[in-house]
Amino acid sequence: MKIQAQWMRGGTSKCWVFEAEHLQEAGTSLDVLLPRLFGSPDPRQIDGVGGATSTTSKAVILHRPVSDDVDVEYTFAQVGIEEAAVDWGSNCGNGSAVVGLYAIEQGWVLPTGDVTRIVTRNTNTNQIIVQRVPTPAGALAAVPDAQMPGVPFPGYAVGLGFQDPAGKTTGSLLPTGTATDTIAAGGTRWTVSMVDAGAPVVMVRAEELGLDPARYDSWRAGVELQLDTLELIRRQAAVRMGLVATTAEAARAIPKLAIVGAPTQADPGCDANVMMLSMGKPHPALAITGSIALTLAARTSGTVLHSITGDTLGSTLRLRTPAGVIETWSEEQGRTLLVGVDRTARTIATTIIHLPEDTGSAVAASLAGATR
Amino acid sequence: MKIQAQWMRGGTSKCWVFEAEHLQEAGTSLDVLLPRLFGSPDPRQIDGVGGATSTTSKAVILHRPVSDDVDVEYTFAQVGIEEAAVDWGSNCGNGSAVVGLYAIEQGWVLPTGDVTRIVTRNTNTNQIIVQRVPTPAGALAAVPDAQMPGVPFPGYAVGLGFQDPAGKTTGSLLPTGTATDTIAAGGTRWTVSMVDAGAPVVMVRAEELGLDPARYDSWRAGVELQLDTLELIRRQAAVRMGLVATTAEAARAIPKLAIVGAPTQADPGCDANVMMLSMGKPHPALAITGSIALTLAARTSGTVLHSITGDTLGSTLRLRTPAGVIETWSEEQGRTLLVGVDRTARTIATTIIHLPEDTGSAVAASLAGATR
Repeated sequence: MKIQAQWMRGGTSKCWVFEAEHLQEAGTSLDVLLPRLFGSPDPRQIDGVGGATSTTSKAVILHRPVSDDVDVEYTFAQVGIEEAAVDWGSNCGNGSAVVGLYAIEQGWVLPTGDVTRIVTRNTNTNQIIVQRVPTPAGALAAVPDAQMPGVPFPGYAVGLGFQDPAGKTTGSLLPTGTATDTIAAGGTRWTVSMVDAGAPVVMVRAEELGLDPARYDSWRAGVELQLDTLELIRRQAAVRMGLVATTAEAARAIPKLAIVGAPTQADPGCDANVMMLSMGKPHPALAITGSIALTLAARTSGTVLHSITGDTLGSTLRLRTPAGVIETWSEEQGRTLLVGVDRTARTIATTIIHLPEDTGSAVAASLAGATR
Repeated sequence: MKIQAQWMRGGTSKCWVFEAEHLQEAGTSLDVLLPRLFGSPDPRQIDGVGGATSTTSKAVILHRPVSDDVDVEYTFAQVGIEEAAVDWGSNCGNGSAVVGLYAIEQGWVLPTGDVTRIVTRNTNTNQIIVQRVPTPAGALAAVPDAQMPGVPFPGYAVGLGFQDPAGKTTGSLLPTGTATDTIAAGGTRWTVSMVDAGAPVVMVRAEELGLDPARYDSWRAGVELQLDTLELIRRQAAVRMGLVATTAEAARAIPKLAIVGAPTQADPGCDANVMMLSMGKPHPALAITGSIALTLAARTSGTVLHSITGDTLGSTLRLRTPAGVIETWSEEQGRTLLVGVDRTARTIATTIIHLPEDTGSAVAASLAGATR
């Protein structure tokens, strides 16, 4: 049994990219097949294609869409490492960044003009993402040359425009109906903004945590002392946004939490300082989905982020993160709004993955290994 | 520029396996080409095929041999992760384990009988390794089913027999001329054995380190308190074995150091307890090359290991390691001696790696990335 796949870098992740029909030939559930292909369960994924880290144990499954409005549909799979399981619950911005390039490289979409536009739909979140890939002279450059923070080698530039992202999870950009709310947690009342775009995010002001908003280098130490309180705020926000009925039920990944502060006057390189929490810890950069919420929050009067960025923003928003300044953009095209970020992507290898056993016996073998 | 490769698991490592002529087509030095293919320098190797750990940043380069006595010649490359560099200084037992299977799968060697014998020569160490792969009914089994510790999925069994391994580095099994020597280090005199087979190894008795030889579970804590002293012993041994002129010049990886002790009477599952140091720390299992030296030491009167194993060993030697009991074997065939271990191997994927730039510009880009 052999399965075709492209191994691609999208942003700062490595993803295995499959066409849905190639996986279907295996005749088994993807919840069984993908972990076996990746070598899970095994903390080292030593017998499979997984990279044994969350950013290198990802799959993107492509579907030819049925509608004329969309060029490619895709489903994101976070493949478990120590567990033979797949999380289908969210999309991944870095994983998304490979889809447009794949469509061009495989001839699914023909390059048109200097920039080719690929309309993609993520099925995990039902989000349209319009991707733009430079195709000077009607073709991908022979040698890609776009750079991005966190990746020491060039790739093809990919613009990811989330189309009308507001309210995809809760139905509304401001699920509580107001731009600013008060949440009681840890014996204190916190002024927060709860925004749903790309992903639900609750935003807290750096000052309220006792952080000097302009001294970004000092944030991490201060944040790490208050992780318990921040988790209480996040769980309260989960209830207030209508995601769950009680704080005990709050999911670990949703909503995200972002701490925001005004940069110094002496730092004209960004519009706001931001530190996002991911799974209870400071994120090394910024989840792309979370950055979409920040972008709309900055453009919505009354939010804690708008009080920092003000009314003079251009089409871009520059957010300082632990990995450097990340720029997002937004633009209106007629009635639709695109909010996005730029990434780079590259195909690392064209592959045929060998699946040695039928997956029934693979599962039996892996269970035997786990109990040995 | 595209380069063919097989991605294979050998033992507890993942290796990229290239035919030499495919790499030559790139027209550049392997010291430049391999790091770029692997995504180095980058602690995450995010833009290449490397797995960002020492056991997943390995390449094996295969050559069709010129002589009739050898079926496949191969060179092992440990590809740097944070440095764009390749270490060609040693062989890797796990990397070796893919060579015979590759030769059968690619039709370089035709299966003969129930076990196919592939004579391989490692060019890093000029060591002949005779590999044996089961081929029941004259072919590889459709579904591999051999298990080994540390790998939760089955593979094809591969026997690795190091042919006449004694003295490959120093010219002699016992480079000092005697089976037991005394080394002064850390204010104490240590009784050690220095043996060159597979790799040069200095062996120290557990008792002399104050460890209870039979209480293997307690070794690690005791060893970690004495790492400085063990490093002094290792450096003295490097000089005594003639590897370097002064202790200051001793290489980090050679000689290896092994602590040996007698198992309890109540533990008939092994012949000796062993803890090997690797790069200054306890090895999680046992380097295959080091296990060859232990095997010959156990069969050589007067060594500290022979004083534990005695004269009653059969053809196998069972060594308790932190990863479980590892079995080695030795057999004489006429005038040649084969000393070896059994592993499993499997082809994970057949690939074509995309190399975007000519490697000159890749190096320039990576340097630019590093200084950004």
